[in-house]
Amino acid sequence: MSKIDIDELIAPVLAYLPNRTPEAWVDAALEHQETILIDHATNELKAAQQAMTLMARNPLNMDIQNKMSRLAREELVHYEQVLKIIKKRRIKFRTMKASGYAYNMAQHIRSDNKGKLTDNLIIGSIIEARSCERFHKIAPSLDEELQKFYISLLKSESRHFKDYLALAQKYTDEDIQPRVEFFLSVEDKSILEPDPLMRLHSGMPTADLRV
Amino acid sequence: MSKIDIDELIAPVLAYLPNRTPEAWVDAALEHQETILIDHATNELKAAQQAMTLMARNPLNMDIQNKMSRLAREELVHYEQVLKIIKKRRIKFRTMKASGYAYNMAQHIRSDNKGKLTDNLIIGSIIEARSCERFHKIAPSLDEELQKFYISLLKSESRHFKDYLALAQKYTDEDIQPRVEFFLSVEDKSILEPDPLMRLHSGMPTADLRV
Repeated sequence: MSKIDIDELIAPVLAYLPNRTPEAWVDAALEHQETILIDHATNELKAAQQAMTLMARNPLNMDIQNKMSRLAREELVHYEQVLKIIKKRRIKFRTMKASGYAYNMAQHIRSDNKGKLTDNLIIGSIIEARSCERFHKIAPSLDEELQKFYISLLKSESRHFKDYLALAQKYTDEDIQPRVEFFLSVEDKSILEPDPLMRLHSGMPTADLRV
Repeated sequence: MSKIDIDELIAPVLAYLPNRTPEAWVDAALEHQETILIDHATNELKAAQQAMTLMARNPLNMDIQNKMSRLAREELVHYEQVLKIIKKRRIKFRTMKASGYAYNMAQHIRSDNKGKLTDNLIIGSIIEARSCERFHKIAPSLDEELQKFYISLLKSESRHFKDYLALAQKYTDEDIQPRVEFFLSVEDKSILEPDPLMRLHSGMPTADLRV
């Protein structure tokens, strides 16, 4: 991909998110690349699981079925790609405590069916956008293999962010903008507040960082 | 695929299963093709979900992660393919009561982690084998589009059946053969006993068949 193509992909993502990943996170992530790779793999799998949860909850919505099925497949391909890199680098895979990032948003999901779908789709769009922003931000500092891989992910992640947002608006009569802004403000805090856990979506790294 | 290729694919499946689908099921399935298509779509999705459940339960088994991730993706492709046929034929998609077929086996799954994995993988192999046997059996009586589609599925389903069986043996020290025979005997009954519900994996159709 040329720089112009990348700039074009990332522009709507940067317009969507209220802030940029702090340099302190980038520095810590570069120091703990194994942790980031393992957490990245886990997140790709979680994204596929989440897409399939939305399918299971909306069995008669054929649009959700078709879009989420394709999205789940793409996330699984990414998962396999990260696992391959992890294996090649002889990194020992492990289960890790999850970042509070997704939970901070998920705890505000409304309980009624319609609200739940809208909120889940909005949160999906934010997570995809943030992943995209972080991959774009960290890529130039990584080795050639990871750089190439993360840039290759930008394309699908930026499309997923838009797909989620379009679906969120499609399946509700409410204007989703206030809800989008609410979840973006929650996300904003997660990204900028001190976070003792180093993860792909973690906040501002503290001095006593756990990996 | 030539007839020789198909015969070669189906031979191990027929050697594995103790019985053949009764003609009475084929006759009823041809009469209720819409039901079979909807149930087929649902089963492809369930197979993907089941593969992902095995991944979630065995997060550190990289072999399971890689094989089940690819399998889930293939099942999702099939799911999308069946949905496309359903849409093209203007069949109204609906949720349906599940066949007792999988439950009849699943109720015997052992509760310890290792036994649970082995039993789930064996049941997976049996379901794939049966799907394969039924697609092969019913294909010649279907219209050209469905015939072509079902024959195209034989290849992956027969591979999945072998993959499941190989994984089942790989992750246990016990000889799996007695367990395989036990689950095959449970399956045998499901297929040959009277069943008032018409589904892809249902038993001998009764006179008061529900679709």
